[in-house]
Amino acid sequence: MNRIEIKTTSRNQMVDITSKIAENIPGKFDGIVIVYVPHTTAAITINEGADPSVRIDMLYLLSKLAPQNDSYSHMEGNADAHIKAALIGNSVTIIVEKGNMIMGTWQKIFFCEFDGPRTRKILMELIAR
Amino acid sequence: MNRIEIKTTSRNQMVDITSKIAENIPGKFDGIVIVYVPHTTAAITINEGADPSVRIDMLYLLSKLAPQNDSYSHMEGNADAHIKAALIGNSVTIIVEKGNMIMGTWQKIFFCEFDGPRTRKILMELIAR
Amino acid sequence: MNRIEIKTTSRNQMVDITSKIAENIPGKFDGIVIVYVPHTTAAITINEGADPSVRIDMLYLLSKLAPQNDSYSHMEGNADAHIKAALIGNSVTIIVEKGNMIMGTWQKIFFCEFDGPRTRKILMELIAR
Repeated sequence: MNRIEIKTTSRNQMVDITSKIAENIPGKFDGIVIVYVPHTTAAITINEGADPSVRIDMLYLLSKLAPQNDSYSHMEGNADAHIKAALIGNSVTIIVEKGNMIMGTWQKIFFCEFDGPRTRKILMELIAR
Repeated sequence: MNRIEIKTTSRNQMVDITSKIAENIPGKFDGIVIVYVPHTTAAITINEGADPSVRIDMLYLLSKLAPQNDSYSHMEGNADAHIKAALIGNSVTIIVEKGNMIMGTWQKIFFCEFDGPRTRKILMELIAR
Repeated sequence: MNRIEIKTTSRNQMVDITSKIAENIPGKFDGIVIVYVPHTTAAITINEGADPSVRIDMLYLLSKLAPQNDSYSHMEGNADAHIKAALIGNSVTIIVEKGNMIMGTWQKIFFCEFDGPRTRKILMELIAR
């Protein structure tokens, strides 16, 4: 298992971590890689990486669906972040062939920060075919 | 593969099943565990377990996003439950080292009931590294 | 790894691909199958297959949560499709025993098109227990 550390700089932010994952996969590995976020106010997703406006729209719409202020019970002011994390999910699984993640042309792996800025951890595990 | 049975007691409910999963993992196992819900009106997620208000907020907001009554076609009165299940997802994958699930400090595994009360099944499978 | 190709016929559509996945699983295989969508405006989910109205309701509600027209930055007119894809997720993992996917009675695997009609690819990988 590998642990990767990243620092986020905003309350809501999507950070492209594709190359950080790729560099921890051995050259001839065949199987799958699990990328797992051990936090409850952050998530991980795979989506379009070419146009940064897609990330802006995604964070905008998530904040519309789960506003920061609503009739929440949780008193820490980050109930919205927990809900966004549950909607997006805390892990992704990617197929690996000969050390390369088999992803679509436009796909990148994004760490989603919903209660930053913070220092965050990402776990990854390789399971051979 | 293991099958775990739980009984839910409300229409919408999040049940912490972390210890039920943990007790089915052999002591020295290294790899991943897949936790899978074979139902279409229930889901599984990993989120904060310490403060019960997070679960209250999550169920509250999901019911705002997918209200029980709307212009639905499905006539069984549980269209909202199917939609919530799709938004949250029906499986999670967790990394295991030496028999221990490697999760964040605040993370717990929750079975999400959206059309209870019912008796429900959860499947789990271990895949060695 | 297998690649499956499908053609969608509407902008928003859920296509049952369960049998296409099943026919690529060898008869005595034990482990898991990962079904992965390499697109950023499509997704994959497991939900009820018996009553087609569930799919209608799901697409209806997703379009309410992420309307096609909103204050989006992305100029290609499909920001909603990227967001729906992130909400539903781009892969599912299913347990396989003796060549059979262990799913619930009502569960089917659905490819979710959010920016069709298009020709789309689905990847699948088997990981033995």
